[in-house]
Amino acid sequence: MSSVREGDWILLYSDKVRIVSRVERGKQICTIRGVVNLENVIGVEYGSKIKTSLGHEIIITKPRIEDIMFEKYERPTQVIYPKDAAYIILKSGISSGSIVVESGCGSGFMTTFLAYYVKPNGKVISYECRREFIEIAKRNLSMVGLEKYVEFKERDVIKDGFDLPDNYVDAVVLDMGRPWDVMNEAYRILKHGCTLTIYVPSILQVEKVLRKNREVRFIDVEVVEIGLRKWKPNPDELRPETWMIAHTGFLIFLRKP
Amino acid sequence: MSSVREGDWILLYSDKVRIVSRVERGKQICTIRGVVNLENVIGVEYGSKIKTSLGHEIIITKPRIEDIMFEKYERPTQVIYPKDAAYIILKSGISSGSIVVESGCGSGFMTTFLAYYVKPNGKVISYECRREFIEIAKRNLSMVGLEKYVEFKERDVIKDGFDLPDNYVDAVVLDMGRPWDVMNEAYRILKHGCTLTIYVPSILQVEKVLRKNREVRFIDVEVVEIGLRKWKPNPDELRPETWMIAHTGFLIFLRKP
Amino acid sequence: MSSVREGDWILLYSDKVRIVSRVERGKQICTIRGVVNLENVIGVEYGSKIKTSLGHEIIITKPRIEDIMFEKYERPTQVIYPKDAAYIILKSGISSGSIVVESGCGSGFMTTFLAYYVKPNGKVISYECRREFIEIAKRNLSMVGLEKYVEFKERDVIKDGFDLPDNYVDAVVLDMGRPWDVMNEAYRILKHGCTLTIYVPSILQVEKVLRKNREVRFIDVEVVEIGLRKWKPNPDELRPETWMIAHTGFLIFLRKP
Amino acid sequence: MSSVREGDWILLYSDKVRIVSRVERGKQICTIRGVVNLENVIGVEYGSKIKTSLGHEIIITKPRIEDIMFEKYERPTQVIYPKDAAYIILKSGISSGSIVVESGCGSGFMTTFLAYYVKPNGKVISYECRREFIEIAKRNLSMVGLEKYVEFKERDVIKDGFDLPDNYVDAVVLDMGRPWDVMNEAYRILKHGCTLTIYVPSILQVEKVLRKNREVRFIDVEVVEIGLRKWKPNPDELRPETWMIAHTGFLIFLRKP
Repeated sequence: MSSVREGDWILLYSDKVRIVSRVERGKQICTIRGVVNLENVIGVEYGSKIKTSLGHEIIITKPRIEDIMFEKYERPTQVIYPKDAAYIILKSGISSGSIVVESGCGSGFMTTFLAYYVKPNGKVISYECRREFIEIAKRNLSMVGLEKYVEFKERDVIKDGFDLPDNYVDAVVLDMGRPWDVMNEAYRILKHGCTLTIYVPSILQVEKVLRKNREVRFIDVEVVEIGLRKWKPNPDELRPETWMIAHTGFLIFLRKP
Repeated sequence: MSSVREGDWILLYSDKVRIVSRVERGKQICTIRGVVNLENVIGVEYGSKIKTSLGHEIIITKPRIEDIMFEKYERPTQVIYPKDAAYIILKSGISSGSIVVESGCGSGFMTTFLAYYVKPNGKVISYECRREFIEIAKRNLSMVGLEKYVEFKERDVIKDGFDLPDNYVDAVVLDMGRPWDVMNEAYRILKHGCTLTIYVPSILQVEKVLRKNREVRFIDVEVVEIGLRKWKPNPDELRPETWMIAHTGFLIFLRKP
Repeated sequence: MSSVREGDWILLYSDKVRIVSRVERGKQICTIRGVVNLENVIGVEYGSKIKTSLGHEIIITKPRIEDIMFEKYERPTQVIYPKDAAYIILKSGISSGSIVVESGCGSGFMTTFLAYYVKPNGKVISYECRREFIEIAKRNLSMVGLEKYVEFKERDVIKDGFDLPDNYVDAVVLDMGRPWDVMNEAYRILKHGCTLTIYVPSILQVEKVLRKNREVRFIDVEVVEIGLRKWKPNPDELRPETWMIAHTGFLIFLRKP
Repeated sequence: MSSVREGDWILLYSDKVRIVSRVERGKQICTIRGVVNLENVIGVEYGSKIKTSLGHEIIITKPRIEDIMFEKYERPTQVIYPKDAAYIILKSGISSGSIVVESGCGSGFMTTFLAYYVKPNGKVISYECRREFIEIAKRNLSMVGLEKYVEFKERDVIKDGFDLPDNYVDAVVLDMGRPWDVMNEAYRILKHGCTLTIYVPSILQVEKVLRKNREVRFIDVEVVEIGLRKWKPNPDELRPETWMIAHTGFLIFLRKP
């Protein structure tokens, strides 16, 4: 059994409460079920219940990294969804030990997923030309302790390319407005058999990437959309949720032969 | 640069050829573009081209693990698709170092994905009551060198449960006909905050899992379907493929508080 | 050319305005582009522009029946969507001259679609046990001039059945909580080869209908979901809308042999 | 009750049989359940059973128009699916009495749906520049008795436009390679408030239509895809079918103000 320590991320959970917080002395969390004094949580075993000021019981458990990202990360930009990130990682063959390049870092959501899977021996090299985004991504990553697996480079890759050797990296992920302008560079730095993933919102960007590839000549080109449909988890009224996200972006996978 | 060695998996690729093979002396591959003598491939650099008996050029590159799985694995059972496996792994928080339980192993497809992500320091414990499936899964895993990360246990978990301590594992994945019969056991062995994933083809199985959970009391229950729509990767005729796989299974995620 | 008369439904349309209204003397419409005095619209040709009080131009055109329904109908109940209504009508073979039974009428949305397609020689017979819904449906239908094609019957069809002869109607549409309780009656009144459509939100209702049919023995049973994905109609940023309606209901089609 | 007459279309139906045929003297139908002599079917009541040469019972019932279309029509071209046709008809407001223009006629599938809904007082005017398609469409329509509601015109509408007055028709449906080239003409002949529907397979055609509309200035532009997912109609194994049609075409709706 493990117990809560100062500085831990915890999830407070009950029928009406779902709050992610870092445990600090002197910090109070106000919930619809009453106030929780986080000092009292220190030393409590994960999975056990504590009483709020109103006498309600709340479970103290561990949040997933995803909970922290989607509730605590700053996000000035559009972020990548888990459904897309998961498929990118699997199709790219990214796993522990991989060296992965991404451009740009945005708010660091994809960076976080990449770092989570390449740890402890791999590395993410993240190119971004806007310094403020690097700062945000770094702050976000440090919340979940993954900053040490990421090297940020402030650099305009469209103009200056990647400062990396040929045949060097295991995967490249591009989430930027004009990815076709760095496809040649991505090809150069990828190892043979490895995958470039391009993530774009508009179908006309897909068209431009495919046209550019007539010159760059990646193989095994795939263009996909990932859909996620949630069902109400109620066995008495089992049916899909009324609304769903119908579009995030198109995923393009291209392999260097 | 790296070059092909005996025993390597290679991908032979051209406009009309896409063949995965292991390199062995004396082995010949017959393609629509002519014969390739694999002995001649040894020592060739990845990414370069060789000539077939008919004088056509074929690229020699590295296959992804997914290529080997879907072209070479024996599969007497229904297998899990990458779209589902990817999302299960991400939602379960499985990464390098995780200890993961699965039941059953089927043909070892999910086992392979799990082993790929927990390596090099984690472990997959795979329960299966049919010995012949364990043998198939072992043979399949050894093709991709991941058998050392998996411990198979021939055991009927519905009757005998998991032979593991309480609060011990980072994730449980159930792909079996009556998952509701092991939900209590899955709860017991999971660490606090960790996720049980249940994969079932029929919606009435989803109903049974949800009803059972009224007693077991996992939290954060989510029921989802993942869809993958492919587009033709042709910039002159850009449109979705006519057919798609509309259903593989329902994914149910449940967390131990 | 035709011109606007008192009592007509019109659509006021400009870059920022999309308002459906009935033309009455003395009525004013306040838009974000200024006030329109409807009296001034009388006699204007459809398709022409008029000036608002702020000097902006607004087009005066005819609304579709769908515009009136979704902007003007009272709707105390969940309503049926055009994507579902359209497919029900086509699969049921409903067209001009058909005699169609529905139960219940809800707010009269499906009733309106049915009446629109059976006119001028057909008839909709609508069973509903709650008088207040009949009143609402009648008021709604009279907005679009279709009330004369509908006969409402206040009757509990689960208890009392349909007061119609055998082999009498061309189609039956059930949108009610326990459709399985009237499947035998629907079978009785349908002509041979004709279709019963059942519309239900929950998959467990689908299960009950299918089980009941093992006894009732309709043929050609089909269960479908209709999805509608909208794209942004912008040629510079062509992509699907972010959100879509993921679920309205399941459609079950059953034919009397 | 009605009984089968010579010349009727019938549906022969049993557990393993589903055959559409026209009743002719001297014609035999060979089924997996034995031979049926159609002469013996004449005078039989719809919904009753007859015995095959092997002693099995087969139900004699009426086919839907859709059954005849999809089993008997010649179709040298890609045809429109009911899911799309149904939504086009509803969104266009097409019903009994409408005057509708289509171009081109292809194999006459859309023509059939249009004729079915405009009858008995409306008319379909179908433009097609390839005479052989007109012949096929006519033969197809005559199978279901709808040819009298359609006027075919052999004419190249891109070059010569529609030979119809301004503000004349209730709906226009374009299913052709370069619809943008007739959008101005479609605008001209449509009544105010009425709808042009364009059906195209490729998203780049959608782009061209939307760009063209910046000049033609239809309002209420909508671009949609209709999806249809079938479920297995088995209450013991309730789940979606494994495969579905993921793409037929994009539907673009544009209204003349």
